[in-house]
Amino acid sequence: MFDVSLLGTGGMMPLPNRFLTSLITRIGGSMLLIDCGEATQITLKSLGWGFKDIDVICFTHYHADHISGLPGMLLAIGNSERTEPLTLIGPPNLVKTVTGLRTICPELPYEIKFIELPYAGTGDSEIRVNDECDGVYLRALPLDHRLICFGYSLHLKRLPKFDIERAKALNIPVNNWNLLQHGKTVVVDGVEYTPDMVMGGARNGIKVCYITDTRPTKKIPEFIKDADLFVCEGIYGDDEKLDKAIDHRHMLFSEAATLAKEGNVKRLWLTHYSPSMPDPQNYIDSARRIFKASYTCKDRTTDTLVFDDM
Amino acid sequence: MFDVSLLGTGGMMPLPNRFLTSLITRIGGSMLLIDCGEATQITLKSLGWGFKDIDVICFTHYHADHISGLPGMLLAIGNSERTEPLTLIGPPNLVKTVTGLRTICPELPYEIKFIELPYAGTGDSEIRVNDECDGVYLRALPLDHRLICFGYSLHLKRLPKFDIERAKALNIPVNNWNLLQHGKTVVVDGVEYTPDMVMGGARNGIKVCYITDTRPTKKIPEFIKDADLFVCEGIYGDDEKLDKAIDHRHMLFSEAATLAKEGNVKRLWLTHYSPSMPDPQNYIDSARRIFKASYTCKDRTTDTLVFDDM
Repeated sequence: MFDVSLLGTGGMMPLPNRFLTSLITRIGGSMLLIDCGEATQITLKSLGWGFKDIDVICFTHYHADHISGLPGMLLAIGNSERTEPLTLIGPPNLVKTVTGLRTICPELPYEIKFIELPYAGTGDSEIRVNDECDGVYLRALPLDHRLICFGYSLHLKRLPKFDIERAKALNIPVNNWNLLQHGKTVVVDGVEYTPDMVMGGARNGIKVCYITDTRPTKKIPEFIKDADLFVCEGIYGDDEKLDKAIDHRHMLFSEAATLAKEGNVKRLWLTHYSPSMPDPQNYIDSARRIFKASYTCKDRTTDTLVFDDM
Repeated sequence: MFDVSLLGTGGMMPLPNRFLTSLITRIGGSMLLIDCGEATQITLKSLGWGFKDIDVICFTHYHADHISGLPGMLLAIGNSERTEPLTLIGPPNLVKTVTGLRTICPELPYEIKFIELPYAGTGDSEIRVNDECDGVYLRALPLDHRLICFGYSLHLKRLPKFDIERAKALNIPVNNWNLLQHGKTVVVDGVEYTPDMVMGGARNGIKVCYITDTRPTKKIPEFIKDADLFVCEGIYGDDEKLDKAIDHRHMLFSEAATLAKEGNVKRLWLTHYSPSMPDPQNYIDSARRIFKASYTCKDRTTDTLVFDDM
């Protein structure tokens, strides 16, 4: 339903055994990538989901470790014979930054569309990025890093439940059910049927949030509220490195866990590890003592999220 | 003396088990890199030579697979605490291309110097890129690719042999020998001694050539003449792919071997393999039947070249 893979788990520079942090989602045959540092195309190749179905690439910010792999990725998508447009989404300076990088890949067999977000991110609005179910909606939240940086939320919305018994009782022909479920009013033999006549209450969708690179902020817990999966940076596991984390505008495992708890998320995946931390699992307790469902990840840690049964 | 490592052997795109073609040399503590595609910093990290001593980076051309790793490499060199200037050398449009890429790495702790070569390459002149022995000299030859592309030659020159017996016979004090060997005239107690009085004939240095991406050209054999190591592209091993090689302005193993033979080189390292060719060794006979000392390479195939004993 909602496949998600953390293509890399490193911060700052790619290492022989750790790619840079990047998340890919696959929903109904459409893929969305968040961040694309150097060598992201290699780990995506290993994952095996292909390149052709990447419809959207979002950028948190324009430090090289989050975007330097874009030229290679654009060419790999081109080599996959994609001809449909590709949408790039990111903070201010998106067009300027991508234009600079495209000096080495000026010709592509598909159009690039830009959604350059304002400094305030998406604010209270949402961007529909996928038509699956009741739509996948993206929101962007300004964070607190050394340059403008956004966190992202992806929300796969679910239609309210269709009440088959009521539809049958009203004698609505079956071929009209789908229209009603998608919010359309139908008229059959001069009788009008409206969605509210056959639809039940709201149902939970699936929400995935991605927060890196930043210090903790007051707005993050509300932004990630009730997420099924919260992917969050933890550059250091050791609480004694707080001063260093503050200096670099990053956060500790324990700070990510505190956000996870405050946001009431279901699960926390830690990522964006410092090259100085070869084995993040050594520090998992510093997160779990605050938020139990905390996990360190490896490159291509992957899961499929499904709707709850409401 | 002259360490050389082929950091990657792939063409077009980096693969999970094959980095992009790039050559690094290390002569007297100074490193020179030719080409820097996406993820070159990862394979260099694996090699373990460090980043700080890279004094020069040359580019054959500006297709992404030969330069997309530059931003990450510049940052890695910066993280190595280098403060000395770094020299970039390449065909026309070097400054424009690097400026575009530096949109994502505008601040570096060292200066970048540019040597943007004209369309004719270095012609009959040479660029001194290292002071080891009698100097390391670089030459660039225009090739035949889909856009302007240069091959490179690196020549570590050797001083003529110093004739100790003659110096002793002339009673030249030992502390003057080094000056004479380096071409200086010295005066001791009113007597003038010139280098020709104590120097023997010319001695061979070490010559390494790097030719990719191109069709064979008439000028290549003369350019690579008598090289100790000829690193050359061979995108396909199978002679039946000649039409495809011509279309893409690349060459076959057999064409590279023919150049090696015509240039009278000592050894040929084949590289820049198509992603469609998982095991280049399967085709080595197509090169060896023309030039015996042909070798396929793997990422980080490394050797140390030494002066012959003349």
